[in-house]
Amino acid sequence: MTVYLVGAGPGDPDLLTVRAARLLSTADVIVVDRLVDRRALALAAPGTLVVDAGKAVGDDPGAAQARITAALIVHGRGQGTVVRLKGGDPYVFGRGTEELDALRDAGIEVEVVPGLSAAFAVPALAGVPVTERGVASSVTVASGHDVEGAVRVLLAASEESTVVLLMAVATRAAIAARAIAGGRAASTAVAVVERGATPSERRVRTTLGGLGSLEVVAPAVLVVGAVAARLEVGAVEDPRPPRTLASSAAGAEGARRRG
Amino acid sequence: MTVYLVGAGPGDPDLLTVRAARLLSTADVIVVDRLVDRRALALAAPGTLVVDAGKAVGDDPGAAQARITAALIVHGRGQGTVVRLKGGDPYVFGRGTEELDALRDAGIEVEVVPGLSAAFAVPALAGVPVTERGVASSVTVASGHDVEGAVRVLLAASEESTVVLLMAVATRAAIAARAIAGGRAASTAVAVVERGATPSERRVRTTLGGLGSLEVVAPAVLVVGAVAARLEVGAVEDPRPPRTLASSAAGAEGARRRG
Repeated sequence: MTVYLVGAGPGDPDLLTVRAARLLSTADVIVVDRLVDRRALALAAPGTLVVDAGKAVGDDPGAAQARITAALIVHGRGQGTVVRLKGGDPYVFGRGTEELDALRDAGIEVEVVPGLSAAFAVPALAGVPVTERGVASSVTVASGHDVEGAVRVLLAASEESTVVLLMAVATRAAIAARAIAGGRAASTAVAVVERGATPSERRVRTTLGGLGSLEVVAPAVLVVGAVAARLEVGAVEDPRPPRTLASSAAGAEGARRRG
Repeated sequence: MTVYLVGAGPGDPDLLTVRAARLLSTADVIVVDRLVDRRALALAAPGTLVVDAGKAVGDDPGAAQARITAALIVHGRGQGTVVRLKGGDPYVFGRGTEELDALRDAGIEVEVVPGLSAAFAVPALAGVPVTERGVASSVTVASGHDVEGAVRVLLAASEESTVVLLMAVATRAAIAARAIAGGRAASTAVAVVERGATPSERRVRTTLGGLGSLEVVAPAVLVVGAVAARLEVGAVEDPRPPRTLASSAAGAEGARRRG
């Protein structure tokens, strides 16, 4: 049978595609990992087998991926429709080709159903356009897992372009410091959206110079460039002060208030 | 009332979001332009007013945009729900902020509903991931309207990154020639997808050196970089020969066969 590699979009199940919603409601098996928003599973029919094949305690990412792929092959060889639901888009930092290749090598039909990438949709829902006439004429999406690569992207980008960093919470201080050392202005606008498209979304406007000391909890989307000034933050206008023991406690309290 | 700026995705109505489909089915007024795939309008209830406010003969793009904005303000001041349906995503080369700002200046509530950008979804549906572990660690989307900017993006991109060019059919020869003159290898893989996510989609695999002389009909998405080799072209493996009177006729015949 066919295995569908389906993008779930950024979180809100209303942002699934019509096709993804239909596949979820007719699937016999749905394979997820810890990155997928569980609300999408409400669309599954009663009796659908949901397999959580993601990261276990102590796993490295490679082990988790091997477990997911093994689950897909086992269920793909059975009867019925298998949906592999992936956060965002399978082909935007989604390891989609690895799963596709493994399934095809096993003789199983695969089809990819694109989803809204968090890289574009999360900023949009927070008021930030990744391109804007006269402000940003191109947009680059990069992963913070590769610090070297993210810094190169930030230094190659002109002032009239946008850089979206995914999976960059842990490396944000190193990336920002090296980009500034390489010549990017510390005053470059940065929009931070934590847990985008979920009920606990949090938005903060900061700068490249302020990013390293800002408290940020993963997952978050970071938008670097002039368009970041459009972030609709409501009452949360300014970045919190640099982290110290005292300000860290105040920051945590602020986060609770906003949560 | 609220005006919803809604991304329609790349064409296929199954790739609308659940939210976009629901808004279309409950809208009182739907405002479209010539870039939107008309199949989405089948979701509208009987009696829905559909306003085609797009480009008229002899218009420049600015005049068309002014007419669309005027239509949104007129209908936004009336009763009922207004959906402004835009191809792709309103915030990825969609002039979404211009419409949003004009509506807010007029005192009308606006909400943006992101859609699948053709930049990611059209390649994905044709087998091309815009990022891939070990192959492409970042992706940049740029517009071919700005030749200078597109060339700069191609020259700034490393071999381990992907560049997606939208609206670059008319300028593809100039962009490719200048990118090669600036140091990009003429052998760099390029995937061309014409009319992506429509029944008349056409895919061609070529190179930066071959792009200028390849026949391409707008709209098309061009993917430059190693991931382009993954394009699933079926029988259409090679670019057509450079355009001459004779080969142009053969090319047109080939296109009919594949259409």
